[in-house]
Amino acid sequence: MTSEMWRARTEWPLAGAAVLFLLIYSVQVILPLSPAESSLLAAVNWAIWAVFLLDFLVNFGLAERQWRWLLRNLHELLILVLPMLRPLRLLRLLTLLRVLNRAGGDALRGRLALYVLTSSAILSYAGALAVLDVEQDTQEGNILTIGDALWWSLTTVTSVGYGDHFPVTVPGRLVASGLMVLGIAVLGVVTATVASWLVESVSAGSADDSAAAVRQELAAVRAQLAELTDQLAAGRRAPD
Amino acid sequence: MTSEMWRARTEWPLAGAAVLFLLIYSVQVILPLSPAESSLLAAVNWAIWAVFLLDFLVNFGLAERQWRWLLRNLHELLILVLPMLRPLRLLRLLTLLRVLNRAGGDALRGRLALYVLTSSAILSYAGALAVLDVEQDTQEGNILTIGDALWWSLTTVTSVGYGDHFPVTVPGRLVASGLMVLGIAVLGVVTATVASWLVESVSAGSADDSAAAVRQELAAVRAQLAELTDQLAAGRRAPD
Amino acid sequence: MTSEMWRARTEWPLAGAAVLFLLIYSVQVILPLSPAESSLLAAVNWAIWAVFLLDFLVNFGLAERQWRWLLRNLHELLILVLPMLRPLRLLRLLTLLRVLNRAGGDALRGRLALYVLTSSAILSYAGALAVLDVEQDTQEGNILTIGDALWWSLTTVTSVGYGDHFPVTVPGRLVASGLMVLGIAVLGVVTATVASWLVESVSAGSADDSAAAVRQELAAVRAQLAELTDQLAAGRRAPD
Amino acid sequence: MTSEMWRARTEWPLAGAAVLFLLIYSVQVILPLSPAESSLLAAVNWAIWAVFLLDFLVNFGLAERQWRWLLRNLHELLILVLPMLRPLRLLRLLTLLRVLNRAGGDALRGRLALYVLTSSAILSYAGALAVLDVEQDTQEGNILTIGDALWWSLTTVTSVGYGDHFPVTVPGRLVASGLMVLGIAVLGVVTATVASWLVESVSAGSADDSAAAVRQELAAVRAQLAELTDQLAAGRRAPD
Repeated sequence: MTSEMWRARTEWPLAGAAVLFLLIYSVQVILPLSPAESSLLAAVNWAIWAVFLLDFLVNFGLAERQWRWLLRNLHELLILVLPMLRPLRLLRLLTLLRVLNRAGGDALRGRLALYVLTSSAILSYAGALAVLDVEQDTQEGNILTIGDALWWSLTTVTSVGYGDHFPVTVPGRLVASGLMVLGIAVLGVVTATVASWLVESVSAGSADDSAAAVRQELAAVRAQLAELTDQLAAGRRAPD
Repeated sequence: MTSEMWRARTEWPLAGAAVLFLLIYSVQVILPLSPAESSLLAAVNWAIWAVFLLDFLVNFGLAERQWRWLLRNLHELLILVLPMLRPLRLLRLLTLLRVLNRAGGDALRGRLALYVLTSSAILSYAGALAVLDVEQDTQEGNILTIGDALWWSLTTVTSVGYGDHFPVTVPGRLVASGLMVLGIAVLGVVTATVASWLVESVSAGSADDSAAAVRQELAAVRAQLAELTDQLAAGRRAPD
Repeated sequence: MTSEMWRARTEWPLAGAAVLFLLIYSVQVILPLSPAESSLLAAVNWAIWAVFLLDFLVNFGLAERQWRWLLRNLHELLILVLPMLRPLRLLRLLTLLRVLNRAGGDALRGRLALYVLTSSAILSYAGALAVLDVEQDTQEGNILTIGDALWWSLTTVTSVGYGDHFPVTVPGRLVASGLMVLGIAVLGVVTATVASWLVESVSAGSADDSAAAVRQELAAVRAQLAELTDQLAAGRRAPD
Repeated sequence: MTSEMWRARTEWPLAGAAVLFLLIYSVQVILPLSPAESSLLAAVNWAIWAVFLLDFLVNFGLAERQWRWLLRNLHELLILVLPMLRPLRLLRLLTLLRVLNRAGGDALRGRLALYVLTSSAILSYAGALAVLDVEQDTQEGNILTIGDALWWSLTTVTSVGYGDHFPVTVPGRLVASGLMVLGIAVLGVVTATVASWLVESVSAGSADDSAAAVRQELAAVRAQLAELTDQLAAGRRAPD
């Protein structure tokens, strides 16, 4: 079995596992759980982790140049090992984004816009969860409910930043930093998409005009050549 | 009567109804009303609703592929049914924006800029109204007058977000989310319009130079061809 | 004397008057003045106003189609009449911006960037002055010194909006609205300038390659034609 | 020794000195130091200053048109003389940015993006340090730890501006102004890079199509010409 075949077959199951992970993390953070429920969810989480680990190992085994592959996929190894720290576990969602990127439409611009908007929606939700996770048990924290967290996340990504809610712990601020940078990226892609569409629509007309004029001239050249050929043929026939 | 004819005839009356709806909603939210006045305005509102319902039904009746049409216009059906929730009623203004889009100028860039700026002015005002509607009766709310609401709306759309006023209820935050996303779109369109204009103005010169050089070469080719044809004709005539 | 001659001659004196007006307004707002000083500055202000009024009347008198001119320059009339309201007097600075626009460099992109940056610097300062003017005497105002006002103005134009200082009066909020919209415009122009420069730099190479290839082909066509003409000439000479 | 040779040889040592300066300034601002430690670090700082002064003087000595060179490098002289004011000393980091610009990649777009992102990371950190330096000893200041300073710096550069921390002194606000303007520039470059990439990717296809069509026509013209030459040759041979 080649590396490509394995990836093609595991793509959707892995995306499903990432979605399941996000759902379980949501329940863990938002709802008050009994110890039994907590243990159950933790067990499912470890199972998902094992699935991702297995996928990583198989990909490593199937790679042609294994050490080069490892170097290029070091970030995936980090995602697997780091999740001991709870909020960082969400980085596993990057697997989901990879599938999104492949499953997108054909046109470059539409695909980029769709990918960025879907990714930023998922990351904003994940960021809200992660911040709620670390802030809700802090003494002086002000992000205490999932509603506050989602609202704060949106004001951050859109760079509005009212300041009615904000993280006060170091891990919360790290997640917030990610969301701020994400906001810059989202704004950049939205603007660039509109600009690219406008530039193309506006310039298409003038470029087409210019190309049409050149091709019209070329057609005239060919007509002149054809006439010349006819004249020559007639000239050669006439003296006979 | 075809679907196009109906749309052409009802376009302006429907836009007028949407404007009237916005005016009535403004009065309902901003001014203190006696029960009699409230009843009157509610009655007019229901009449406007009936007009939109009628338009929807006629359009459905005139459509060629009715179920496909229904699927494509599901959002209009939702706008008609949902307005039980007061702030969502403002979605009816989308009818007005549709007319704006048609009534815009000819040039693509100017039309887009005009459409986005007018739409965002209307939506900012409507957002301010909707937030004032739900926040002014809340215990811990801080958006209590139409002045506060308009000021808050502008700081949100421009992504400034001082945080001196902000919504605290779930419906208010939903409306605010819409305004934040609108702000990203406005910024994107403004930037893209300037960028497209600059790119076109700057590149037009160089593209014209390049095209002119090619066409000059082509003219030289045709002159050579004409000379050749003359030579041939002279050659054929000379031996006679 | 034609309208153009008058404008060319009065351009710089009027810009000087606008700068003088800004200086006087700064002193009026920032420094505590004795009644005598206040009267003096007010008198100079009225003199400046008279200069602008004179310019407006002369331009009206020299215009070819007077009523059409009046309609197109209605905003200048408003700037002349409205200044009863103190902060709106700053609109007179638009005269200064008009001069800036003419005095800018030659290249389109550089001129636009220079114009927008200079204008926004002047308008940010003027906005700070106007807000300080109306807010410093308000009970619950929090913009009390020129330092606060400049700081608030910059956080507004850059859309940062900390919320440590913000206007609370209606005129102050109107000026703030202008600064927020200015901020969107500045961001748009900065981004568009960089984008246009990048697009031009990157696309210039590929467009040149393409044009060079076409012109190389055309040169080959002309070489073939020249050879054909030589052959014909040789053929006609040979039989002789 | 020419000016270019001196610059090429001193580039990396000067960048190293700038990094060392940033490290020492970090320790001075963040850690509580004993008088002996303070004196040591101040001495090293003066040594670095002497290195930059020496470089400036040698460059001045080697310059061809010395006064013109001085005028063009006035900002470097200011950076050398001004550092009496502690936070302004960070301007010396501009030397480091100059090296970054030269050491960047080859492609224009990638190089610009890399340069801007690295520069803004360094400047954000330096801005946080400078603000902490001046704000931590202020009575009513609210930026008291390096964590607060970095967090504030990021909310400022991304234009989020929660307002939970903000500078209150004049030097602190000046540094903050620089960071806000930097934020506008970063946003502009990020957006412009994506836009330029999109415009190029989208337009490349259509431009290639157009160029290919023109070159196909030209190939047909040359084929016709070749056929005509053959006919002529055949015609000349036939009569023999």
